[in-house]
Amino acid sequence: MSRTVYLDGRFVPFAEARVPIMDRGFLFADGIYEVSAVLEGRLVDNAAHLARLDRSLSEIGIRNPLSSEEWTRLQTELVASNGVREGLVYMQVTRGVAERDFAFPAADTPPTVVMFTQEKAIRANPLAESGARIVTVEDLRWKRRDIKSVALLAQVLAKQAAASAGVAEAWMVEDGAVTEGSSSTAFIVTGDNRLVTRPLSTAILPGITRQAVLRLCAEGDLRIEERPFAVEEAVAAAEAFYTSASAFVMPVVAIDGYLIGDGRPGPHTRRLRELYMGMALES
Amino acid sequence: MSRTVYLDGRFVPFAEARVPIMDRGFLFADGIYEVSAVLEGRLVDNAAHLARLDRSLSEIGIRNPLSSEEWTRLQTELVASNGVREGLVYMQVTRGVAERDFAFPAADTPPTVVMFTQEKAIRANPLAESGARIVTVEDLRWKRRDIKSVALLAQVLAKQAAASAGVAEAWMVEDGAVTEGSSSTAFIVTGDNRLVTRPLSTAILPGITRQAVLRLCAEGDLRIEERPFAVEEAVAAAEAFYTSASAFVMPVVAIDGYLIGDGRPGPHTRRLRELYMGMALES
Repeated sequence: MSRTVYLDGRFVPFAEARVPIMDRGFLFADGIYEVSAVLEGRLVDNAAHLARLDRSLSEIGIRNPLSSEEWTRLQTELVASNGVREGLVYMQVTRGVAERDFAFPAADTPPTVVMFTQEKAIRANPLAESGARIVTVEDLRWKRRDIKSVALLAQVLAKQAAASAGVAEAWMVEDGAVTEGSSSTAFIVTGDNRLVTRPLSTAILPGITRQAVLRLCAEGDLRIEERPFAVEEAVAAAEAFYTSASAFVMPVVAIDGYLIGDGRPGPHTRRLRELYMGMALES
Repeated sequence: MSRTVYLDGRFVPFAEARVPIMDRGFLFADGIYEVSAVLEGRLVDNAAHLARLDRSLSEIGIRNPLSSEEWTRLQTELVASNGVREGLVYMQVTRGVAERDFAFPAADTPPTVVMFTQEKAIRANPLAESGARIVTVEDLRWKRRDIKSVALLAQVLAKQAAASAGVAEAWMVEDGAVTEGSSSTAFIVTGDNRLVTRPLSTAILPGITRQAVLRLCAEGDLRIEERPFAVEEAVAAAEAFYTSASAFVMPVVAIDGYLIGDGRPGPHTRRLRELYMGMALES
């Protein structure tokens, strides 16, 4: 089956999906993106992703060209036409095509809309069994990390630092504290059953999976503490994990080469992953 | 004459210049750009721009796909084929096209190369006669501003703040001091003939026109002081101006509504603009 992509109102073959060089996404990173997971052919927690997409667009003054219903219909159609059972659907909206000039183009410039799917093992992810090793890097990003923009060069460099170290993810560090992963939210579990993660602010992205995990956590025996934590505290923690739309809940078993706990996924992390998976399968 | 663009080894009609949606420039802002001015059909200070392009690419691990000689030959050919007498040539190199994944693609992935021209009045720019009014905004950018990347969303928002205020440029401010303009370098001239501009660091782009102006200045009666300056000091300065490849030396006559000096382009600024123009015409 040939891969289909959504581009500016049409479903087109992957090989034909091209944007003009004057697209502001290409020239200025002047755009927003979102990623929703697909499990058993269905979108996971999609309403929350569409709400965040809308909020990000609004923060940088791009009109959301589609309603939530229209987004959902197009996503569903794309997932179906590509036969994706497990993976993700990626959405991007840019400020459109205009002669290069930093300031916004004419208000009637139509935003560019791109959507594509990727197949990916989410449930039977071997990394979730073994646990991920991660490294820490300096957080080089801009000051509005609550906006999910495509200006991702700092995240690319962070992820590449992880790849070069032979590990799956990099946690970014600023002023001595972990902000978040290059494409995930960072969590630790202390020896006395507290789940620690950074509070929402402009310093991190408001993670959709983060939100769901905190919700799921409210029912268990973990006390939630939203505060920054240092790398040293993470290394000394009982458990650590990160969350993202496509990693779900991913155990962290080593940070910068130091084992977390006994170097295997911890019980709280495993339980949260199962709870989240259950929620995702019901969505 | 129809507009021609350079894209990945070929000169193509403007309307056909498109990149795949999987280009890392479009998805991740994973690319570098440069802009050289064109005056009387000739490139201005181009060797310095190509050196900075090479340095930026190297800082983020993208191979420079062309030698300086090849860049120059292609730029010259593009300028000629579009009949540009005055304006600029824009160059962009991205990490190429690959299935979306934050980490770098396979090392043999060819970088994407895009080049286009824009016609623009540089010498007879009315703004240089009247002087530019500017506003100040918070500097939201990442921590490696010495790299001329296409992750320009913060600069877009800054320039739009200027446009919304009906002015030409915005100076960005961090920790009380001006860093630089959204697409230019910031300078002030004090009452006792000192030219003040921020020293090079990761906080600002190493401006090519900045470099030339400091060189030209060495001959005159201005003493150069490379240090940060506050908005208050700028407002109280005798003169202010900004430099960029396409604005050359642009007088600033008001900052956030406060007039600089008598609200007209100052003598030092006018002289530096003339000196720079002379240099540019000889290049």
